[in-house]
Amino acid sequence: MLQMIHPEHDVHRTDIFGSADPFVASEHSNDGKHHLLLAASGSVATIKIPNILNALSSHPNLSIRLVLTKSASNFLAGQSAEQPRIETLRRIQNVEGIYLDEEEWHHPWKRGHPILHIELRRWAHMLVIAPLSANTLAKITSGFCDNLLTSVVRAWDPTGQLEDSTQGGGQARAKKRIIVAPAMNTAMWRHPISKKQIKVLEEDWGVCEESVDFDGEDDDGWFEVLRPQEKELACGDVGDGAMKDWKQIVEVIEKRLDLVE
Amino acid sequence: MLQMIHPEHDVHRTDIFGSADPFVASEHSNDGKHHLLLAASGSVATIKIPNILNALSSHPNLSIRLVLTKSASNFLAGQSAEQPRIETLRRIQNVEGIYLDEEEWHHPWKRGHPILHIELRRWAHMLVIAPLSANTLAKITSGFCDNLLTSVVRAWDPTGQLEDSTQGGGQARAKKRIIVAPAMNTAMWRHPISKKQIKVLEEDWGVCEESVDFDGEDDDGWFEVLRPQEKELACGDVGDGAMKDWKQIVEVIEKRLDLVE
Amino acid sequence: MLQMIHPEHDVHRTDIFGSADPFVASEHSNDGKHHLLLAASGSVATIKIPNILNALSSHPNLSIRLVLTKSASNFLAGQSAEQPRIETLRRIQNVEGIYLDEEEWHHPWKRGHPILHIELRRWAHMLVIAPLSANTLAKITSGFCDNLLTSVVRAWDPTGQLEDSTQGGGQARAKKRIIVAPAMNTAMWRHPISKKQIKVLEEDWGVCEESVDFDGEDDDGWFEVLRPQEKELACGDVGDGAMKDWKQIVEVIEKRLDLVE
Ligand SMILES: Cc1cc2nc3c(=O)[nH]c(=O)nc-3n(C[C@H](O)[C@H](O)[C@H](O)COP(=O)(O)O)c2cc1C
Ligand SMILES: Cc1cc2nc3c(=O)[nH]c(=O)nc-3n(C[C@H](O)[C@H](O)[C@H](O)COP(=O)(O)O)c2cc1C
Ligand SMILES: Cc1cc2nc3c(=O)[nH]c(=O)nc-3n(C[C@H](O)[C@H](O)[C@H](O)COP(=O)(O)O)c2cc1C
Repeated sequence: MLQMIHPEHDVHRTDIFGSADPFVASEHSNDGKHHLLLAASGSVATIKIPNILNALSSHPNLSIRLVLTKSASNFLAGQSAEQPRIETLRRIQNVEGIYLDEEEWHHPWKRGHPILHIELRRWAHMLVIAPLSANTLAKITSGFCDNLLTSVVRAWDPTGQLEDSTQGGGQARAKKRIIVAPAMNTAMWRHPISKKQIKVLEEDWGVCEESVDFDGEDDDGWFEVLRPQEKELACGDVGDGAMKDWKQIVEVIEKRLDLVE
Repeated sequence: MLQMIHPEHDVHRTDIFGSADPFVASEHSNDGKHHLLLAASGSVATIKIPNILNALSSHPNLSIRLVLTKSASNFLAGQSAEQPRIETLRRIQNVEGIYLDEEEWHHPWKRGHPILHIELRRWAHMLVIAPLSANTLAKITSGFCDNLLTSVVRAWDPTGQLEDSTQGGGQARAKKRIIVAPAMNTAMWRHPISKKQIKVLEEDWGVCEESVDFDGEDDDGWFEVLRPQEKELACGDVGDGAMKDWKQIVEVIEKRLDLVE
Repeated sequence: MLQMIHPEHDVHRTDIFGSADPFVASEHSNDGKHHLLLAASGSVATIKIPNILNALSSHPNLSIRLVLTKSASNFLAGQSAEQPRIETLRRIQNVEGIYLDEEEWHHPWKRGHPILHIELRRWAHMLVIAPLSANTLAKITSGFCDNLLTSVVRAWDPTGQLEDSTQGGGQARAKKRIIVAPAMNTAMWRHPISKKQIKVLEEDWGVCEESVDFDGEDDDGWFEVLRPQEKELACGDVGDGAMKDWKQIVEVIEKRLDLVE
């Protein structure tokens, strides 16, 4: 299943495989790469993460860091061929770090020390949450940040103004986007609260593609929702909460990060 | 205290007492019984669960499965006569399964495997949460599903259309209902957020008893709230957040499930 | 750093240092002291708690109890001089108890037993949450109460009518206030949800200083928000989410509790 493997990694390992040094975004700001922060929350569609990573492994100027919620990590525990252990994903080309909640407190914080969710937000040019579970959808729209993923989301800087705007990929970046791909049981998806919370992401905080930026700020949002598709779900219900096809998600990522011309 | 005891259980044990096989709703769809999913969240009124179960133990065609939140389970740890250990409840007639959060992940999920909160929702003809804590009230109305109980609630299928509508009790069932009995300290109950959240359950998602079903669907909700009573609370406050009397709750259950004629 | 130290404490220790007896508010209602319940949630500004406690240690008629969320406790683990271990705070004059989440269930609850979050709310004349994290802000405004601090907040009795109104400090107390000092990363603070949730605390549930109490009740709220200041944050962002200066917080506490004339 793993297509591209790079045997060696940098010595500054900062993720679940035991890190000597904490992760600091500024050390990577001039690497000339596109920085994709990919995340999964606790939906069955988490098993598509290996496919997404493998599909993105061929891009030469791409750097990927992965964040998993605790529930999401349950789906990648080596219980089947399509559900390898998380650690094995680290061997896929372009994957430069994998982060679980425990990482946030791995280095007991002292004044002046980096804070992981802030560094990841600084580092990232884009955050993609695929799958987005019903629970994490609720947390995000309610402003909760009780784990690493939702802390990154809560501390997201859509304007890019709080960071050095010249960092990453060589070019100044305008707005930093969060792309989410909800994936849930049909009944969960049809529950009225889903509609309400998706509306918050799409309308209140959503990227407005058509908007003409007169003054270059504050006239649109930073969320983009990749709505579910219709298909048979893992639980047996036939329905409409299934995650958008992972190949289409890969295409959106490639387009938004200008990985293909 | 335990009134009726049945010494032997089926070999397919699927709950907290160690289960060989995962619970699958379809195995029980033709048992000719009424399926009550009873749940408790972390209020002191959880100590009424044994009374409710015992009162329901005399019905011949009733099958009960019990879900407890982690907090609720703290109230049934054998610390007094009226607070027996959870396991002992399994011996009450009609109680066929008791589920805690850990059960959800007991069998590491693979493609094709059942998902507990979905199976319980499929199995159940009705869900009764008594007591409903302030915290679980907040979670439900905000769309959170970070434990087994709230996952069942979030994935509830009020229309019954996602299941085989002929299963259970022999007759086709119309709408599946969730009945909740809030129970909390008076100050918690009087907090303006309680009113707001109860309103969501009663008005936005609530069963509308008067509604005439013209087309048989979508014209009313699925929640029924059994409002608290006035009495002295466990914490000493005299107030109005105490759970409705458990005997009245039993009566409502019997009526809604047509257990008595 | 610790200014005043009192070597001996009462035998009824009820906090993290192992308690024989549960904490009961009524045992302290006639101590003639002002009762300050001070709390911290998981912001870096938690490291100001020792300063606040030391500044308040000189008041003769003040009794302080401290509540920390799990995240907050990570900031006081002895990792630097300004971040002593929590236990050491117990030695500061006026600090009579420190409570973590585990305390709530330390004594398995039986009928008639005290409930910690209710006892603390009874005992307190005022609750000050400094710092208030983005996450705890979200929990409070959404009505969640999944830990000790948010349970105290959810069960707060602003009217003081549920308690013996003559207890504490000798004088009858009108309204009991909750003062919060938000502290978060600039991007977190600028997130639209912060504005919305702060508005709930300030406008919907906020103390209305100008209101004339015609009938002495129900015409205003119980929250007071000490808005953040502008300064460089721990994460390196220059911004406006930093907690109000701790000295000013101490001044507000002294004023609201009438500690200075
Ligand atoms: C086997 C299994 C499959 C699940 N699939 C989904 C799913 O597809 N979508 C979803 O929203 N929740 C699903 N859930 C429920 C979530 O895992 C649960 O709500 C969890 O608390 C989500 O946590 P997170 O949002 O922090 O990742 C599933 C749970 C289990 C046990
Ligand atoms: C001894 C004790 C009694 C409690 N009684 C209640 C209660 O009656 N109602 C309530 O809403 N919360 C009560 N709480 C608080 C809840 O247990 C707490 O909010 C918990 O997080 C609820 O979790 P759950 O909603 O997941 O069950 C009590 C807590 C303790 C320690
Ligand atoms: C080193 C570190 C510093 C943090 N600083 C803040 C902060 O200043 N403000 C904030 O709202 N959250 C901050 N967070 C995130 C919170 O700790 C996180 O949201 C946590 O879940 C809050 O839990 P609590 O609200 O229960 O205390 C920080 C996290 C870490 C690891």
